[in-house]
Amino acid sequence: MRGAVIYAPGDVRFENLDDPEIINPTDAIIRTVATCVCGSDLWPYRGAEPIGDPHPMGHEYVGIVEEVGAEVTNVKPGQFVVGSFATSDNTCPNCRNGWQSNCLHREFMSTCQADYVRIPNAHGTLVATDEHPDAEAVPGLLAVSDVMGTGWYAALAAEVKPGSTAVVVGDGAVGLCGVIAAKELGAERIIAMSRHASRQTLALEFGATDIVSERGEEGVARVKDLTGGIGADSVLECVGTAESMRQALHSTRPGGNVGFVGVPHDVRVDGQELFFSHVGLRGGPAPVRAYLPDLIDRVLSGRISPGRVFDLTLPLDQVAEGYKAMDERRSVKALLKP
Amino acid sequence: MRGAVIYAPGDVRFENLDDPEIINPTDAIIRTVATCVCGSDLWPYRGAEPIGDPHPMGHEYVGIVEEVGAEVTNVKPGQFVVGSFATSDNTCPNCRNGWQSNCLHREFMSTCQADYVRIPNAHGTLVATDEHPDAEAVPGLLAVSDVMGTGWYAALAAEVKPGSTAVVVGDGAVGLCGVIAAKELGAERIIAMSRHASRQTLALEFGATDIVSERGEEGVARVKDLTGGIGADSVLECVGTAESMRQALHSTRPGGNVGFVGVPHDVRVDGQELFFSHVGLRGGPAPVRAYLPDLIDRVLSGRISPGRVFDLTLPLDQVAEGYKAMDERRSVKALLKP
Repeated sequence: MRGAVIYAPGDVRFENLDDPEIINPTDAIIRTVATCVCGSDLWPYRGAEPIGDPHPMGHEYVGIVEEVGAEVTNVKPGQFVVGSFATSDNTCPNCRNGWQSNCLHREFMSTCQADYVRIPNAHGTLVATDEHPDAEAVPGLLAVSDVMGTGWYAALAAEVKPGSTAVVVGDGAVGLCGVIAAKELGAERIIAMSRHASRQTLALEFGATDIVSERGEEGVARVKDLTGGIGADSVLECVGTAESMRQALHSTRPGGNVGFVGVPHDVRVDGQELFFSHVGLRGGPAPVRAYLPDLIDRVLSGRISPGRVFDLTLPLDQVAEGYKAMDERRSVKALLKP
Repeated sequence: MRGAVIYAPGDVRFENLDDPEIINPTDAIIRTVATCVCGSDLWPYRGAEPIGDPHPMGHEYVGIVEEVGAEVTNVKPGQFVVGSFATSDNTCPNCRNGWQSNCLHREFMSTCQADYVRIPNAHGTLVATDEHPDAEAVPGLLAVSDVMGTGWYAALAAEVKPGSTAVVVGDGAVGLCGVIAAKELGAERIIAMSRHASRQTLALEFGATDIVSERGEEGVARVKDLTGGIGADSVLECVGTAESMRQALHSTRPGGNVGFVGVPHDVRVDGQELFFSHVGLRGGPAPVRAYLPDLIDRVLSGRISPGRVFDLTLPLDQVAEGYKAMDERRSVKALLKP
């Protein structure tokens, strides 16, 4: 089969690779129907994370089950399945507590930009749709496997409640899905921080009520202006830099909540500042598995359209162009079709 | 009148001071019935916080109203009142959200180790009891004005729920009150981290089910042993050092919560570590005002006995000995009577 391999910053190649095989009885092999490039893939692509030896890339996927291990009974060959970027057995104590992305047997997916993918913990990770979805539903289902699930978690971690005010820091695919999530969870006012016209438009279409294009302390001041001087009830931090975290914390009202889902890079939170802010803080890799049935339903019923974050569709063999387009911000998110 | 003044580390003096007067129409003057020394008073006493010019001390109090400003209608002269270490108007947006200790007009109390005290924002801060309490109820009501209210907040911030497992880091008065709070909020298992026999005994009497005397990573390992290997649902951090915060974060299960109420000193939380832990973190000065009616009821009905944290009672003029006894850990908490 063929798949993406990263060699160095800016150097992603599409190569022949060994076909994946069942290794453990809880594995499945899927034929990829769609995969994509994640904002977090750009960290190594931009040289902001070490790469080490050349290795495959990709952790978002929907596909058709090809083969299952002996202990996989929840899905069967021929079914269309959605999974999560973090695999889980769905039975360990952390899974039972609702934190499947902290499963004691978790493996992070990392080989999905390829024709076929081995899914570890398939028995606890994959959810099949009742029937094969229409082609137009595929991007939304693909989004659910990571960015929509992550936006959903950001909104839950930020404790978005009906009637509340939410701020979304970051206008990438996760931030935009965070707008969808805040809307679905009943936020009355949703302030999207973005300075890119096309992303502002999409945020407004997804339910944002206000756009703040300023950044840093200027952006914080604008949020305060819009929230009676005290800040927002809930802030979704969807970037992962020290600056975006500071912006998120400072935009939150006393006693409000920040949900942070951008993998933090060089972020340190000052204990005394957090203390006097009364802000609650929770982050992490989203437990997407917990939300899959619900989010799949919302996509298939047409209630939400997170697939719209894909503004570029490429054949899988042009994966390198997907990275390049996102790195240059020509694309919010690139969908890849084998 | 007379009151405590701190001059330098280890140097607290009892001196003649000007009687307090009504300055604003929302002020009240109370005659102190009981006050005390707080663990946080030990930071400057130990030289761990700058002192600057000599200044009065003390932020915990119960007393009899002597005089009220024109806008104070909730209490009247002659009534016995309980307040909070942080004053609040109880009407600003932060107060209405339940964060009275972040009131837009907040003033922190700082002159309470004295015969008389001016209470700013008395209209939103003081709560009167129906009648003058018995002498034996006074220590409990005094505790409510800070340590019991703070332990309560720690348990709420750590999201203690019926049937859950809670860990309390810190065996000072706040930590011990945190044990009471965790018990009241329904925790099934309460692990108190303490290595002092008398404090262990009190923690057990307050409802702790287990004592862990180890500290640091050894203490964390013991907590993990007691919690099926994953850590506790809720951890109350009642110290405020980098070590105690680390111990708290590492003792919490994935997706659990840390409530931190020890004023952080040189605490920095690593964003990436917090991210992958999925732990929720919330701290701050407790919004004691929000809990006063409930906690006063619990004390007066005899349901809780937080007054037992006072293991030393001194006449106010021996305030310096109160500091010394606590500094040398001869006393958990010293009550002072004018």
